[in-house]
Amino acid sequence: MKKTEAPNFALDGTIADTVKECSGAAVGAAPGWGGDFLLTEVGYHPDRVELNGSRFLLSNGYMGYRGTLEEAEKEDLVACTLAGVYDQVGTAWREPVNAPNGLYTLLSFNGQPLRPGLIKPAAHQQVLDLQQALHRRRTTFTFAEHSVEIEAERFLSLADPHLMVMAYHFRSAHAGEIVIETGIDADVWDLNGPHFTEVSFAAAGPSRTATVRTNEGKVIAVAEAVSGIEGQKELVTGEQRLLQRITLTVAAGKEYCFYKYVAVYTSLDPECAAVGGASDRRAQEAVRRAVAVGFDKLRAEHVACWAERWQRSRVVVTGDPEAQFALDYSIYHLLAVVPAHTEHASIPARGLSAQTYKGAIFWDTELFMLPFFIYTQPELARKLLRYRYHTLDGARRKAAEYGYRGAFYAWESQETGEDACSYFNVTDVFSGRPLRTYFRDKQIHISADIAYAIWQYYLITGDESLLFEGGAEIILETARFYYSYAYFKKDKSRYELLDVTGPDEYHERVANNAYTNYMVKYNLAIALEVIGLLREKDEAFYQSLIEKLDFEKDLSGLVEMNELLYLPPPDPQTKLIEQFDGYFRLEDVKLSDLKARMKMPHEYLGGGNGLASTTQIIKQADVVALLNLFKADFSRAVKKANWAYYEPRTEHGSSLSPCVYAMLAAELGKKDWAYRYFLQTATIDLTGDYKRYVGTLYIGGTHPAANGGAWMGAVFGFGGLHFDGKTVKLKPLLPAEWQALVFNFQVKGQWFTVEMTEEQVRVKADRGNTQPIRFEVAGQQGICGENGELVFAFPDGKSFG
Amino acid sequence: MKKTEAPNFALDGTIADTVKECSGAAVGAAPGWGGDFLLTEVGYHPDRVELNGSRFLLSNGYMGYRGTLEEAEKEDLVACTLAGVYDQVGTAWREPVNAPNGLYTLLSFNGQPLRPGLIKPAAHQQVLDLQQALHRRRTTFTFAEHSVEIEAERFLSLADPHLMVMAYHFRSAHAGEIVIETGIDADVWDLNGPHFTEVSFAAAGPSRTATVRTNEGKVIAVAEAVSGIEGQKELVTGEQRLLQRITLTVAAGKEYCFYKYVAVYTSLDPECAAVGGASDRRAQEAVRRAVAVGFDKLRAEHVACWAERWQRSRVVVTGDPEAQFALDYSIYHLLAVVPAHTEHASIPARGLSAQTYKGAIFWDTELFMLPFFIYTQPELARKLLRYRYHTLDGARRKAAEYGYRGAFYAWESQETGEDACSYFNVTDVFSGRPLRTYFRDKQIHISADIAYAIWQYYLITGDESLLFEGGAEIILETARFYYSYAYFKKDKSRYELLDVTGPDEYHERVANNAYTNYMVKYNLAIALEVIGLLREKDEAFYQSLIEKLDFEKDLSGLVEMNELLYLPPPDPQTKLIEQFDGYFRLEDVKLSDLKARMKMPHEYLGGGNGLASTTQIIKQADVVALLNLFKADFSRAVKKANWAYYEPRTEHGSSLSPCVYAMLAAELGKKDWAYRYFLQTATIDLTGDYKRYVGTLYIGGTHPAANGGAWMGAVFGFGGLHFDGKTVKLKPLLPAEWQALVFNFQVKGQWFTVEMTEEQVRVKADRGNTQPIRFEVAGQQGICGENGELVFAFPDGKSFG
Repeated sequence: MKKTEAPNFALDGTIADTVKECSGAAVGAAPGWGGDFLLTEVGYHPDRVELNGSRFLLSNGYMGYRGTLEEAEKEDLVACTLAGVYDQVGTAWREPVNAPNGLYTLLSFNGQPLRPGLIKPAAHQQVLDLQQALHRRRTTFTFAEHSVEIEAERFLSLADPHLMVMAYHFRSAHAGEIVIETGIDADVWDLNGPHFTEVSFAAAGPSRTATVRTNEGKVIAVAEAVSGIEGQKELVTGEQRLLQRITLTVAAGKEYCFYKYVAVYTSLDPECAAVGGASDRRAQEAVRRAVAVGFDKLRAEHVACWAERWQRSRVVVTGDPEAQFALDYSIYHLLAVVPAHTEHASIPARGLSAQTYKGAIFWDTELFMLPFFIYTQPELARKLLRYRYHTLDGARRKAAEYGYRGAFYAWESQETGEDACSYFNVTDVFSGRPLRTYFRDKQIHISADIAYAIWQYYLITGDESLLFEGGAEIILETARFYYSYAYFKKDKSRYELLDVTGPDEYHERVANNAYTNYMVKYNLAIALEVIGLLREKDEAFYQSLIEKLDFEKDLSGLVEMNELLYLPPPDPQTKLIEQFDGYFRLEDVKLSDLKARMKMPHEYLGGGNGLASTTQIIKQADVVALLNLFKADFSRAVKKANWAYYEPRTEHGSSLSPCVYAMLAAELGKKDWAYRYFLQTATIDLTGDYKRYVGTLYIGGTHPAANGGAWMGAVFGFGGLHFDGKTVKLKPLLPAEWQALVFNFQVKGQWFTVEMTEEQVRVKADRGNTQPIRFEVAGQQGICGENGELVFAFPDGKSFG
Repeated sequence: MKKTEAPNFALDGTIADTVKECSGAAVGAAPGWGGDFLLTEVGYHPDRVELNGSRFLLSNGYMGYRGTLEEAEKEDLVACTLAGVYDQVGTAWREPVNAPNGLYTLLSFNGQPLRPGLIKPAAHQQVLDLQQALHRRRTTFTFAEHSVEIEAERFLSLADPHLMVMAYHFRSAHAGEIVIETGIDADVWDLNGPHFTEVSFAAAGPSRTATVRTNEGKVIAVAEAVSGIEGQKELVTGEQRLLQRITLTVAAGKEYCFYKYVAVYTSLDPECAAVGGASDRRAQEAVRRAVAVGFDKLRAEHVACWAERWQRSRVVVTGDPEAQFALDYSIYHLLAVVPAHTEHASIPARGLSAQTYKGAIFWDTELFMLPFFIYTQPELARKLLRYRYHTLDGARRKAAEYGYRGAFYAWESQETGEDACSYFNVTDVFSGRPLRTYFRDKQIHISADIAYAIWQYYLITGDESLLFEGGAEIILETARFYYSYAYFKKDKSRYELLDVTGPDEYHERVANNAYTNYMVKYNLAIALEVIGLLREKDEAFYQSLIEKLDFEKDLSGLVEMNELLYLPPPDPQTKLIEQFDGYFRLEDVKLSDLKARMKMPHEYLGGGNGLASTTQIIKQADVVALLNLFKADFSRAVKKANWAYYEPRTEHGSSLSPCVYAMLAAELGKKDWAYRYFLQTATIDLTGDYKRYVGTLYIGGTHPAANGGAWMGAVFGFGGLHFDGKTVKLKPLLPAEWQALVFNFQVKGQWFTVEMTEEQVRVKADRGNTQPIRFEVAGQQGICGENGELVFAFPDGKSFG
């Protein structure tokens, strides 16, 4: 993996320096930062525009803005994707809305538009500053005898998530006429659009506004203002655009600069609801305020917010710059995408990078991203879980739709918890027809995944309040769902879960998927535990909850099912857990042989006729995911046997898979395997080495679950962090090149920094801690009190392995 | 439908007369026979060879011989398919073995072989005599100035099922040299062959023998002898043939005639097993005997056997020759194909017409053919059911294979009851790959179908002995299977049957298929009933059976499941029964619209990706089949509503389907619908209007289940015959053209002839009857004692409808 690709010319750096001076930003580097926190691409490569749109993504949880150039239009897949704002056109998939592009800016010199599609740039560089969440581009357009350099820097403010801000510089080698066309482009890229049924433009005072209405009646307003540039100005309106045309005569070699302030509001924003939904007015006000505050201050506020986030979440690796950068990049995406401004949105499977996967929330969030947030950003973790409470009614409706009780969470959840998942999610490449898939109706583990995550949050943070604010209700309602889903096998005296799809989606409609059954068992167990907890803490609350849910009659069933639910056991001889009933009887083909049977590049391997469906080849970690989640319940021999069995049979057709194999490999001391799978996870969005298509379906974008997996791979895998609610366990197993691993985390609200090598683990308590926490490293235990420090070391200098 | 197709020349009849004289057969026409019992095709049509092979099929239950010409070779799909003799090559489907062709005969005149492929016949006629089960062909070959007429008549003896006999006549217009090559052709047509690993020929005394050994080590011997012709004889052996070459000089216009006697024995025949498996010796002996007895006597014995069968089974329709012929033709096939010689074979889905459908026994036999046999040939019905007892251990093994107890009968049963059904039964026409289908593992109703048939046999014949000779054991073991298959839904207090495929195979792996659940309920109920019966009749037998089966512990479960099994009820408003859980939520598309979506002519509509799978279009009668079987359990309103709902949604992709719609239509007074579906059923093997391919799979041949459906359509449908074990109900609803309907049947061993018009029903008891039987027609009741007669009539001359 290379961060800097295809260098084809050397920048002279002059404009970059100018910009820095111009912006005046002066944030001190956070401790531990090296200088190498820039993702840089040199040279303009048309075939990488789609990929770089995701690689250079900015987002602030409210919206994402793809890493496209300022002059780009929808053919280049420009998108400003809004979190939690969905729209449906006809019967097509419901997807998030892309707002009109308020950053649109095109320069022309002497009548020649400066656009890479028209003039191949003589020099071009695109940079994403991970530390400060800034996007920069520098381009030199050379044509005839002319040469114009432009540089733009932009950010999506973390301080005010409605705000996008840009500084735009340019310099011509020769005098001439520059025309700046800048404004709002409402002709946006859509997968299942167009979503705008009405588009209206206004130019009032210093700002211009585009107000659009979606098919579903939501209103999105984008306001924009420009400051810092003089020239002849006129308004240009197209059918889908409102631009300001600024004409000025430039002197040779002189740098010019202007600033753009863009604000986005929608009728869903509480601020707008409070003023009768007038999102256009809110947007205009926000822009006015932004202009008044000015670029430098806004940038400083933004960078300060980022510094605060990084402070808690960064993981430092010494000795392996590649891994360090991949980790920084992964964590950047997690911190960027989380919707800190609301409890009514969560993190979609492709973040805010595109409309792919319907902008929907999957189990990715709870199982793959949430651990990172729980340990390093617990307030944000809490919000993500509260989203599931706000969508509980949707989960109840879904359960009822299928004739069940309780809460059956959406496989693909949007803002209300309705399931956005289609019954025909993939297209058959042979017949060209949509394929019936069973993600929506059979992947029942989603409810238990959410209950599991809530309990993990509670166990790790010690924050009971979430249980009282919806957490317990979710746990009870999901448990109730499973009771109503389960069947009892009388001659075996056990409950079973039939006709389900586990994490391995290639095998649909199976019985007793091990992962699902164990997760459901956990859900039942914590339901009984949370009942005890509520009764102990607040009997009145408990009683009113039970009454509200009419739950009394379900209690005995839960107790019985918790006792009698069938958990596919490891085979006494082989130690193998069968992924589902009959899995071992499927054809045992080698992955390479299976792939050799493929006739079409993007053919779907699962489902009714998929090549994998009748074989033991699985899409992703399933039994191994189970073993990784319930570490204490399985022996090392069981983990080893199953890792060895399933690893060669796993296609890793999901980006969720490698990190799970990395973590279990690390636990088992398989350093090389762990590193290989860790790197695969951590670099996925850098290299773009992921599936862009399933069947004929575009699924590109960023992979926040893999980003979360990268953090877990480092901290849970190589760091061995595990907290069961009582003792923090650590167990370093560092890849060969790693001299040290440093990370921060909290448990029970107590913050710690861990610095580990293979010979020593040093734990430092935060000075604000209020209670001691027990630590255990390789059998040694210690208590780390307020502001304390523990050092675990092997006297003989050997590793902990 | 025309019985005589494409007449292109008029036969002069001379040879036909000669043959009759020559053969000397003189069987009086059975009462009620008109002269029109000949299926005749005039003219030789190469493109109809495959179809006519089935249309002109001879069989005698031991073997079937396709309606090909004597000189035909394997390219013309000659086949002598053996009942109950299966063989497997490698991993290909196991299929019945085609014996070497002992009838092979080719004439040459002056060196010119007389074969339609070489010389287009100047005249050609092929005839199947349904009454006497004789195949005749007459052909005139004209070439240069020559003209040779040949006529051959053959039959598969019903008196001795090992025997095929042929009379072969020829006459040349001019003098010249005739060479007859006749013998045994072991180069046979196979679908999944070749099955012969060793072929050896012997010529000893007057006969020639081919002895072959199959992959599975079975030995088949075909012996042949020729009599009645003089000439220069020499043996000619090819790699796969042993022929006698007989050269004679013929006079102009003179008729010559010879006879061929062919005997087939296999090492599976008890006669051969008794002499150490020497099937060749048995075959040679049989041929020697046959030669001694002579053609005429053998023919007379054969025809007499047929007359006896017809006597009981014929149905006479007055006023509709087309329907009469179709019924005769259907019943001919049923009488021809039933393996009366053994209890170790049953009737395959394509009879003995080919190796298609693996020569396997499906529910076709019990649900569609058996009623005909129970009512008109109860001894043969008993043998067919005893086959299921001989294969009970196979059913036990299949249950155990899937982790169940009891007996799970093979979906495609061969001689041991192992399931011949493949997991990949259909090929995807788009990808060219085999499709995973769930006939084998999910079509669990097969076991209940068999139990149902046993109980019907008992109820109708009154013959308890079958229950003591395996019938009760089957009923208990199938009930036990269902108990072990079922799940209990605790919050609904009911047993359910999950993950099944009902008769409508387009919708696989559904829950609570109504047909299946009601059939299983019946199985449970009769299990409890048969227990009562055994205990009452023979407590010691009962005790030893229960002990042998270790059944005591299962009794309470059966009682409970019989009480609590979920039976999908008719909706109180719409009266509709949902075919399975969720069926009504599937896309409700019109059949024509669905067909318009097809992209390939033979694409399979069911299974994983089939077009019908996600819609309400069904392959065949399912709920309607249920309503037809359990007449007393559903109101007329329910029957009407469901007929009306499901009829337009049924593709009739199975030849089993139309007769079921015919019967329920007749019950509901829908005369036109009933007639239309009846004719469709009764003419299927005449017109050849059936599917030849599913995907790339050849499935041609005869349709004995439809043949049984034709009989049921006439007798159950238009005659309204129904016997519940106590009262025979009759209810005429005759198609417009039908002046009268006459049929014979037995109940409780008492034989009756019914003659009905729409105004009058006359019941005549057989003179051999020993007990009175109660009859009911349109509310009127009467008792018909020995040799008695009942007449039911409407005084006002109106119909019974």
